[in-house]
Amino acid sequence: MPITPEQQADIDDQRAQSASTRRVVAPGMEQHLYTAHQVLDHGFVRVIDYMGDDAAITQAARVSYGKGTKAVQNDEGLIRYLMRHWHSTPFEMCEIKLHVKLPVFVARQWIRHRTANVNEYSARYSILDREFYIPATEHLNKQSVINNQGRGDALSEADSHRVLEILKADSARAYDNYETMIEDDANGGIALARELARMNLPANIYTQWYWKVDLHNLFHFLRLRADAHAQYEIRVYADEICKLVADWVPYAYKAFEDYRLGGAQLSQPAVDALRKMLKGEEVTAEDVGMSAREWREFMEVIG
Amino acid sequence: MPITPEQQADIDDQRAQSASTRRVVAPGMEQHLYTAHQVLDHGFVRVIDYMGDDAAITQAARVSYGKGTKAVQNDEGLIRYLMRHWHSTPFEMCEIKLHVKLPVFVARQWIRHRTANVNEYSARYSILDREFYIPATEHLNKQSVINNQGRGDALSEADSHRVLEILKADSARAYDNYETMIEDDANGGIALARELARMNLPANIYTQWYWKVDLHNLFHFLRLRADAHAQYEIRVYADEICKLVADWVPYAYKAFEDYRLGGAQLSQPAVDALRKMLKGEEVTAEDVGMSAREWREFMEVIG
Amino acid sequence: MPITPEQQADIDDQRAQSASTRRVVAPGMEQHLYTAHQVLDHGFVRVIDYMGDDAAITQAARVSYGKGTKAVQNDEGLIRYLMRHWHSTPFEMCEIKLHVKLPVFVARQWIRHRTANVNEYSARYSILDREFYIPATEHLNKQSVINNQGRGDALSEADSHRVLEILKADSARAYDNYETMIEDDANGGIALARELARMNLPANIYTQWYWKVDLHNLFHFLRLRADAHAQYEIRVYADEICKLVADWVPYAYKAFEDYRLGGAQLSQPAVDALRKMLKGEEVTAEDVGMSAREWREFMEVIG
Amino acid sequence: MPITPEQQADIDDQRAQSASTRRVVAPGMEQHLYTAHQVLDHGFVRVIDYMGDDAAITQAARVSYGKGTKAVQNDEGLIRYLMRHWHSTPFEMCEIKLHVKLPVFVARQWIRHRTANVNEYSARYSILDREFYIPATEHLNKQSVINNQGRGDALSEADSHRVLEILKADSARAYDNYETMIEDDANGGIALARELARMNLPANIYTQWYWKVDLHNLFHFLRLRADAHAQYEIRVYADEICKLVADWVPYAYKAFEDYRLGGAQLSQPAVDALRKMLKGEEVTAEDVGMSAREWREFMEVIG
Repeated sequence: MPITPEQQADIDDQRAQSASTRRVVAPGMEQHLYTAHQVLDHGFVRVIDYMGDDAAITQAARVSYGKGTKAVQNDEGLIRYLMRHWHSTPFEMCEIKLHVKLPVFVARQWIRHRTANVNEYSARYSILDREFYIPATEHLNKQSVINNQGRGDALSEADSHRVLEILKADSARAYDNYETMIEDDANGGIALARELARMNLPANIYTQWYWKVDLHNLFHFLRLRADAHAQYEIRVYADEICKLVADWVPYAYKAFEDYRLGGAQLSQPAVDALRKMLKGEEVTAEDVGMSAREWREFMEVIG
Repeated sequence: MPITPEQQADIDDQRAQSASTRRVVAPGMEQHLYTAHQVLDHGFVRVIDYMGDDAAITQAARVSYGKGTKAVQNDEGLIRYLMRHWHSTPFEMCEIKLHVKLPVFVARQWIRHRTANVNEYSARYSILDREFYIPATEHLNKQSVINNQGRGDALSEADSHRVLEILKADSARAYDNYETMIEDDANGGIALARELARMNLPANIYTQWYWKVDLHNLFHFLRLRADAHAQYEIRVYADEICKLVADWVPYAYKAFEDYRLGGAQLSQPAVDALRKMLKGEEVTAEDVGMSAREWREFMEVIG
Repeated sequence: MPITPEQQADIDDQRAQSASTRRVVAPGMEQHLYTAHQVLDHGFVRVIDYMGDDAAITQAARVSYGKGTKAVQNDEGLIRYLMRHWHSTPFEMCEIKLHVKLPVFVARQWIRHRTANVNEYSARYSILDREFYIPATEHLNKQSVINNQGRGDALSEADSHRVLEILKADSARAYDNYETMIEDDANGGIALARELARMNLPANIYTQWYWKVDLHNLFHFLRLRADAHAQYEIRVYADEICKLVADWVPYAYKAFEDYRLGGAQLSQPAVDALRKMLKGEEVTAEDVGMSAREWREFMEVIG
Repeated sequence: MPITPEQQADIDDQRAQSASTRRVVAPGMEQHLYTAHQVLDHGFVRVIDYMGDDAAITQAARVSYGKGTKAVQNDEGLIRYLMRHWHSTPFEMCEIKLHVKLPVFVARQWIRHRTANVNEYSARYSILDREFYIPATEHLNKQSVINNQGRGDALSEADSHRVLEILKADSARAYDNYETMIEDDANGGIALARELARMNLPANIYTQWYWKVDLHNLFHFLRLRADAHAQYEIRVYADEICKLVADWVPYAYKAFEDYRLGGAQLSQPAVDALRKMLKGEEVTAEDVGMSAREWREFMEVIG
């Protein structure tokens, strides 16, 4: 269980409180505040704070005086225009702060997105909990034979079983030894410095952090991590965050979905090929100077 | 006047509205929301939005579950500790969004602080107002003969008068010609593209922008720009923002004041010199390998 | 003339020197080093230093031990793959440092690209030269009636003449007064602090800076600023830099040209429309939920 | 051994090559290029590339035309002035690219420095080597009872032995199981996707990356990580890099040593206390409003 009863009580208490503010309020986001949305077996995402809404994007784009007084339709049109033409600065005017619990190997991918603010639980100071990510059987796959960094066929039942046994046994042993190393001498432990003892812990242990990011950079993160090529274990976090963002800034999220998540980036040779095709001409990869791989990716786009 | 009656009515309208939120509210900041604090002759700073408060800093530092449940004294002690030891990430968990109106030459200094989000009024799209910074007489000074980038003695009354006449006349003429260039042909103008016409405008014309920044980077900005060596025309903006921050996050601001704005950075040779002095020894610049300039700066620190 | 004979002699002297290094050398870039490529009437771009070449990109992508020992064809294929799939970090492993002289209104657009290092000539310390950008007649256009931030038809000859007279006269007068203000009292000047006097100078005066950026962020800059929608006066700088980059990292530049500068970003509705069209179906904007503007932009892509 | 004979031959080959360049060459750095400086039991730091030297810092500060023609003494004085007064942009004009091999728990601290470019060896694509950090006995310490994140007394010989046995056994078992999981079925393995198998590996396994950073941000990294409070395992990397930088940009490094690594930051109350002390007055923590902890830290500074 990712949330203890005490923590849940704490969250419920926070959710029960409310105060009056002159700031812009996004009703769709208020409902999510503090709620821990479960991800994987012990992880979660919860919104701690946010700044701005759809109108804050257009307000900044107009450097206007008001909260965004133009008609709603205009706001949506402007947001779509900004997204389509890569005018990113107005999207930076919204900000979100999340509390995330996630396995260390996921955290290591996540942190590569540098334009964000992070405070991670420190295993130099504090003791990590005995919580490890153990995949569900249906997410155990063989190494892909096509894609060097992807997953291929499902494992056999026997092999799945072997993997789970390994992960569980090694996690348990590593944690037992971690405990022995940090335990006080008085209790038969070694009282080893925590900053040293942690090195025995495997990458499927859970950590947690506060992560704060602006909407533009969040979209960049989501485009890469909610993508079908992203590793499943980070994609589920991105998917969960997508739902939150859709409730927070619905126009911006829809534009993001249409122009970034969906849609396609075509190369100049691909555009050339397309124009010929639409005129009814036959085109080959050679005609437009595309490699076999590029051509295959192009074919996937045009269905 | 920086604010027209219509704009003031708009601001008053915004200030009159309030909504309920589950987010952290900083009462000291709520009172400032939207209010335009005048700076220089036509400029202003006003808070559009903010995220977090003092407790949000310690909450992130603790990666805790609550809004910051420890005793108040602990919060202040922790904030001072974080500031003293350059633990900057918890301060990044607070964010502020300002609407600033400022002369272009001030904007050019300001924008050098890169870790912030900015949307500036675009003179490619829109027409700039006829508003120029004309210094008050008491802020007209000669070039310093000591410091290459500072101000020295006050100008004579006659010279002050000459400067003001130049600035006013050149601003007026430049703007008249700007208007002529962008005015429609039908009205005797040239209908020149705005992106071209703007090049005729001098650096004391006012622009405006939305500027969003986290508290750590804001402190960095304030340390450099609220400093006595900063140019007066940007320092007055920094000073105004300091007051806002003091009301928003009082513990953090006090720590900033004690450890960054005030206080001093001593070099290793300066520390060596100090230790000898405290033992009652005579020390010279040569003894500790300091240049005349370093020694002078050191003497200023120790009074 | 942007370069004085003394400066040219200095540049020639630098170009004549060479030293031995163990670092990667990009022969195509060595030929450009220090040479000032003229841009606009008084501006220039010159390469001061660079780090890396095409092989450095693939080396980082492989975190390999060698300088890039794989066959050349592999390098190009890998670079194109990285570009196509937005794997940006390997491109960040190349770096370039430029010395640029440019009008202030261009510098103000340029500086909005934040992920770069900049040292600008300081008019607080130093005196700016009497050099102003005066557009060539063929670059004087009316405000576009279609695009709020673009240029439309050419001006009449008479109007062009009026604009040039205004720009020249106002620049000259502003600079004369700037000189008077900073000139020593002994010479009839006012000896006003330089940081104040500069505010009288219009945005077409030239400034200069050192600008250092990694290849990924440079490509981002070039995509936006070498675009047909960018203002002409910054586009000519971007175009000049494109030529330098093409000689420096030819594979990466070609991939950038094919996938970023050229090519197109299609929305999900546009992809849907395209698939139908390729099947020979009739499609309208309404069918796929595109606005008139989106449809027009889509039609431009597919020719 | 961190470097295989084949890799060493490769490095030697690279070192044997040299080419002619017009760029600035830093002789002190050329000697280090490509050489792997060993750190910890299997790690290393080696310089892959660099840009600039001491003169490049002052050149940017002056936005001059030459490589830095002023007298050497001036250069050093200017560099010290820039460092003392936090003028950071000229230091950003130098850049370094390192290849680093380091334990994962060290990498996790390191990556928190966001203003840098990184390409890490990917365990989604590739198989990690069987190389684990096993501390030397003299670096095994108890948890500090004073500092929550520090090390205290040395372990007893028996306890050291226990720790090392745990770390070795758990590493070996984890790696054996990792191998089993990724091994082909044909060889009795499971052929599990690499991106999944890696989660079984503990934080003392080695990874490697290319890390590129400008000198200003490198100094910031070194100030925090070469500090006595930094964890030993990252400090040894910082110490090694300090030596490289001292050879690369000797003036800048000396200024960094005097003003950042050494020296002290005093708060305003501390400066007040100091002034009184120098006048011979008795001062207590209470007199200047310092906490017991602040006072203790202050006493350490003044010896």
